[in-house]
Amino acid sequence: MSTLAILGNGRVGSGVATALARAGHTVSVADRAPGAAATAIGAAQIVLNATPGAGSLERLTALGEPLRGKILIDVSNATLDGPDGLPAALLYPGSSLAEQLQAALPDTRVVKTLNTMLYSVMTAPGSLSQAPTAFLSGQDPAAKAIVGGLLADLGWEREWITDLGGIETARAVEAAILFVPHVIRSRGFAPFAISIAR
Amino acid sequence: MSTLAILGNGRVGSGVATALARAGHTVSVADRAPGAAATAIGAAQIVLNATPGAGSLERLTALGEPLRGKILIDVSNATLDGPDGLPAALLYPGSSLAEQLQAALPDTRVVKTLNTMLYSVMTAPGSLSQAPTAFLSGQDPAAKAIVGGLLADLGWEREWITDLGGIETARAVEAAILFVPHVIRSRGFAPFAISIAR
Repeated sequence: MSTLAILGNGRVGSGVATALARAGHTVSVADRAPGAAATAIGAAQIVLNATPGAGSLERLTALGEPLRGKILIDVSNATLDGPDGLPAALLYPGSSLAEQLQAALPDTRVVKTLNTMLYSVMTAPGSLSQAPTAFLSGQDPAAKAIVGGLLADLGWEREWITDLGGIETARAVEAAILFVPHVIRSRGFAPFAISIAR
Repeated sequence: MSTLAILGNGRVGSGVATALARAGHTVSVADRAPGAAATAIGAAQIVLNATPGAGSLERLTALGEPLRGKILIDVSNATLDGPDGLPAALLYPGSSLAEQLQAALPDTRVVKTLNTMLYSVMTAPGSLSQAPTAFLSGQDPAAKAIVGGLLADLGWEREWITDLGGIETARAVEAAILFVPHVIRSRGFAPFAISIAR
């Protein structure tokens, strides 16, 4: 069992925190305030970023010292939103938030995952009628293995998890957010996950 | 039954042409030479672009006159390729080839589809063990309905087809090509389709 700090107490952060605590992990949730985040990070082995992606790089870079040596799971999406509040464009086209975070935090092991689905699917992947995919992107295989274990605790079966490769592969999964407004407009907030059918 | 001109005689063009001819359509295949393409387009109601995406805008803009009034199905991917020949980056980040084509060919109804999978899946979607998705993007509902009918002839079940909306939604499906090199590197050229699990 791990000690986790979840940054962000919106639907994503709260949902993941509840599910990981239920699985037996020690979980603290911090809102976006830097002081609360630093305290939570200090006590944790693993940190999960569920703060709004557009501000995440600045927010987490400021937390570089407490994040040193930790695994940082980034589930956020860095987008420019349209007037309806849905993602309209990527904030880092030709790159990705995860790559920017890894470059800014060289002593932290960044793993990108879970940003390619409606938030409710993150902690209930078995609720879909088709097999969903959870992608892993990151430089460190050991960190990805640990994150894969947490995904298992959230209900993800091993064959649903695809390790795409290094942190640069986050560019693909972050671009997948471009599907989201169209999927939601055509079918509403029904659970879905961008997935690889094989 | 329709009369189709397929532009491009590589694996994609040849495969789709064979399958549509088998389904009873009248199909001609033209290589990239402008004269051959213009002749094939002149006799067709529907044109399918399976030429390399990086040159498609210039190639098809030059065929604007014969393409007037036709449906243009674009299945290509406009990418900058890496040294291994796999897609490394988008040629039109923040836009898409399909949007560029629609802007350059205002009297042609552009429909983007089928660019989100290994070529073999286009004509054998039932061969996957999981339900794949074919996306439709385009301004004209009637044109998308006709293309949906052609997909059915290729073996696509109705519930596997997701109409994402207008041509601007091609930005999402074209960005999905960024998954392809990582999927191929991790699993080889095994059939797959970027899909929406629900």
